[in-house]
Amino acid sequence: MKHLLTTNALSLEEVRMIIEEAQVFAEGATWQPEQQTFVANLFFEPSTRTKCSFEVAERKLGLNIIPFEVNASSVLKGETLYDTIRTLESIGVDAVVIRHSEDNYFSELEGKLKTSIINAGDGCGHHPTQSLLDLLTIQQEFGHFYGLKVAIIGDIRHSRVARSNADVLHRLGAEVVFSGPEEWFDESLLESGKYEEIDQAIATSDVVMLLRIQHERHEQDGQDGKEAYHKKFGLTVEREKTMKAGSIIMHPAPVNRDVEIADELVECERSRIFKQMENGVFVRMAVLKRALQEGGKINVNHHQKWPIAY
Amino acid sequence: MKHLLTTNALSLEEVRMIIEEAQVFAEGATWQPEQQTFVANLFFEPSTRTKCSFEVAERKLGLNIIPFEVNASSVLKGETLYDTIRTLESIGVDAVVIRHSEDNYFSELEGKLKTSIINAGDGCGHHPTQSLLDLLTIQQEFGHFYGLKVAIIGDIRHSRVARSNADVLHRLGAEVVFSGPEEWFDESLLESGKYEEIDQAIATSDVVMLLRIQHERHEQDGQDGKEAYHKKFGLTVEREKTMKAGSIIMHPAPVNRDVEIADELVECERSRIFKQMENGVFVRMAVLKRALQEGGKINVNHHQKWPIAY
Amino acid sequence: MKHLLTTNALSLEEVRMIIEEAQVFAEGATWQPEQQTFVANLFFEPSTRTKCSFEVAERKLGLNIIPFEVNASSVLKGETLYDTIRTLESIGVDAVVIRHSEDNYFSELEGKLKTSIINAGDGCGHHPTQSLLDLLTIQQEFGHFYGLKVAIIGDIRHSRVARSNADVLHRLGAEVVFSGPEEWFDESLLESGKYEEIDQAIATSDVVMLLRIQHERHEQDGQDGKEAYHKKFGLTVEREKTMKAGSIIMHPAPVNRDVEIADELVECERSRIFKQMENGVFVRMAVLKRALQEGGKINVNHHQKWPIAY
Repeated sequence: MKHLLTTNALSLEEVRMIIEEAQVFAEGATWQPEQQTFVANLFFEPSTRTKCSFEVAERKLGLNIIPFEVNASSVLKGETLYDTIRTLESIGVDAVVIRHSEDNYFSELEGKLKTSIINAGDGCGHHPTQSLLDLLTIQQEFGHFYGLKVAIIGDIRHSRVARSNADVLHRLGAEVVFSGPEEWFDESLLESGKYEEIDQAIATSDVVMLLRIQHERHEQDGQDGKEAYHKKFGLTVEREKTMKAGSIIMHPAPVNRDVEIADELVECERSRIFKQMENGVFVRMAVLKRALQEGGKINVNHHQKWPIAY
Repeated sequence: MKHLLTTNALSLEEVRMIIEEAQVFAEGATWQPEQQTFVANLFFEPSTRTKCSFEVAERKLGLNIIPFEVNASSVLKGETLYDTIRTLESIGVDAVVIRHSEDNYFSELEGKLKTSIINAGDGCGHHPTQSLLDLLTIQQEFGHFYGLKVAIIGDIRHSRVARSNADVLHRLGAEVVFSGPEEWFDESLLESGKYEEIDQAIATSDVVMLLRIQHERHEQDGQDGKEAYHKKFGLTVEREKTMKAGSIIMHPAPVNRDVEIADELVECERSRIFKQMENGVFVRMAVLKRALQEGGKINVNHHQKWPIAY
Repeated sequence: MKHLLTTNALSLEEVRMIIEEAQVFAEGATWQPEQQTFVANLFFEPSTRTKCSFEVAERKLGLNIIPFEVNASSVLKGETLYDTIRTLESIGVDAVVIRHSEDNYFSELEGKLKTSIINAGDGCGHHPTQSLLDLLTIQQEFGHFYGLKVAIIGDIRHSRVARSNADVLHRLGAEVVFSGPEEWFDESLLESGKYEEIDQAIATSDVVMLLRIQHERHEQDGQDGKEAYHKKFGLTVEREKTMKAGSIIMHPAPVNRDVEIADELVECERSRIFKQMENGVFVRMAVLKRALQEGGKINVNHHQKWPIAY
């Protein structure tokens, strides 16, 4: 039983194994555990997109999913997260997928449970399956990470994905730059990359990775604020024209159309936004297989050879 | 992939094919898609009855159902319906069943998606699977539609089912009359049938189709209002005695007992109310099969011959 | 089709058959109905723990589960429980598991439905599967009930489990004593056992069965109230040291740590709290099999012989 809590805790070897396996699933491989296996998805913060993606991945692996209604749960009566998961463990749940509003909610759980924990997002902390699906998408496109320039644009400070992606891409040898409003940048990010002005970042990067503006967090923004953001920091139709040949657009979705990205670019040729979602299922299959499988060898039969360039 | 949006858009040939196939399912036939197939039920308006019926139909066809929680969805964060369904499409969902409070919500989606859309009710607009299950129930009873007299009684103006049923029954050669409070009738209905006084309508029809009084819409009605409605426009024990030999009672449910229909008549011999629900599963199986199957041929093996009289 | 409504209505022979069959499941036996079988879990009061346990049990039996969202249901529009279940019956649901806030909600349903009803808790009334899993846990430990002393401690008056357990344990020949705040005891309990002072009850019983303090019901209790309760009526570290050799601790969970029981005792060697949860799945499998199977014979193949001492 292996947890997946953060990408930072994964060695590059583990990162590569997961995305390699995900690619194998993307090409149609199947795998099912030998015994009837139970999982539960505990989404203490709502997220249809991520939850639905896990639900598809779980069903593709033939897992049994125990519906867990957070609003009806004893957690509301003050039960600890440990007791909740220990209960699920007792009734036979082999792995839990958790999204929680608290940063590092899992630190109190480590070492105490046999059930595998897969982190589907913690506070402003981590969102490892999102990072891994981003990596898979980049790998599919370029075949390697080394030497690529990746611009991460938007509310970097509050983004789970920005930090994880910046760290792992930096470790994989990519050049990472950050852009967007300077007040959303912070010094701690300098370990992974430097701040760059928006037009330059867009014009010179292989991957333009936009982050969602969380209007939930920035309530002042009305329609005016949205238009102003789009003009100053969004991927406008004009800016897209300056992008390098072969470069791609990514966004974790849901997209605010005409804020982070112009409406007509969401499904343009450069866009990998829906491809990312597609890849999310395969990454989650790989992560679930890793969590449920003793050992962790790739035992899927597949004829194809997929060369991974590191 | 074929959508099912309205009965109006179905040719009579298509209507007949669906109810014929539904009857085949009612007699125990089975069908499963060749590949693992995913559906999602998006009920933006609650409806346990219709949703549960689809859920049974989907499981009888061996489909994988991705739970979609409207209250947790990005739709609440302003995501368009298109983006929501496009996301589900990306993660592998082959068909979506949608109930939505907006009339013709599907008009913005047509032609843009590969995923099949099955309309499970839109605003005051349409509810095609309800119409089709009503037709199946009538077909089972009488073997034909031509020449039957069908009375549709109640809040016709706000009923999704009344208009669809009136249109398709009229096209199939039945005589349709409307009854109930005259202020709930309107001129546009004259295309399909005329208004008739309640006692005559009940005494002369082969099918007495009652509509649910939506107390949600008519808030003035207290207990007095309910009793008054029952006396004036409900199927009372006395009125039932005037019904023609062989005539039947229908209601889309949930029933307001002692309002549209006397409590003791809900499961009387003439009543097909629970039969309608039973048929709902078979109609939805037929509609899902049609949506998921390339082409649309009936390839179910069945020994029985079911003569359909048109 | 057999209902399970209360333990009081079960003969001792039936109780023994259910826990024997549950033990067979605990040892790895499997059983599946011959035909595709549908169940629905209607939890009008939330309870993740019990619901999840039923969900696992149902999936282990290969049943198809129709999700039923109480908040979206027509029950809220005034539909009777009978009409709701009759609807589910019409669409093909073979058994329903119900939790409801009303005592004896099932009395209006008996004899009217073909669908099996399994009571998962009614008001302050009954919770038969909890009782049965408690019995299974005691049986596994001691091999018999006759002559055991069982102390039930806490809010006995409002506990569904206390009454059912006291009655059935008394019938099975155990000595039952009640303890905790005297104002939570009442005369009607004297049929099954007498009140005993807390220290004596804990020191002399084979089974110390703690009940959950329902802070929902006793709102006055702040942190002070909790500490005071723990000192006066809780299983403190000191009291545990006075327990008999071989005696065990039980609690229906969720536990209020440091209220009914000291935090460090929750998973101590004497504790069967998580074992109870584990057993819950097997008891529910047995109860569902009993509900779905014509007749009720044990037809599971198993090599092992499990001697049940009565």
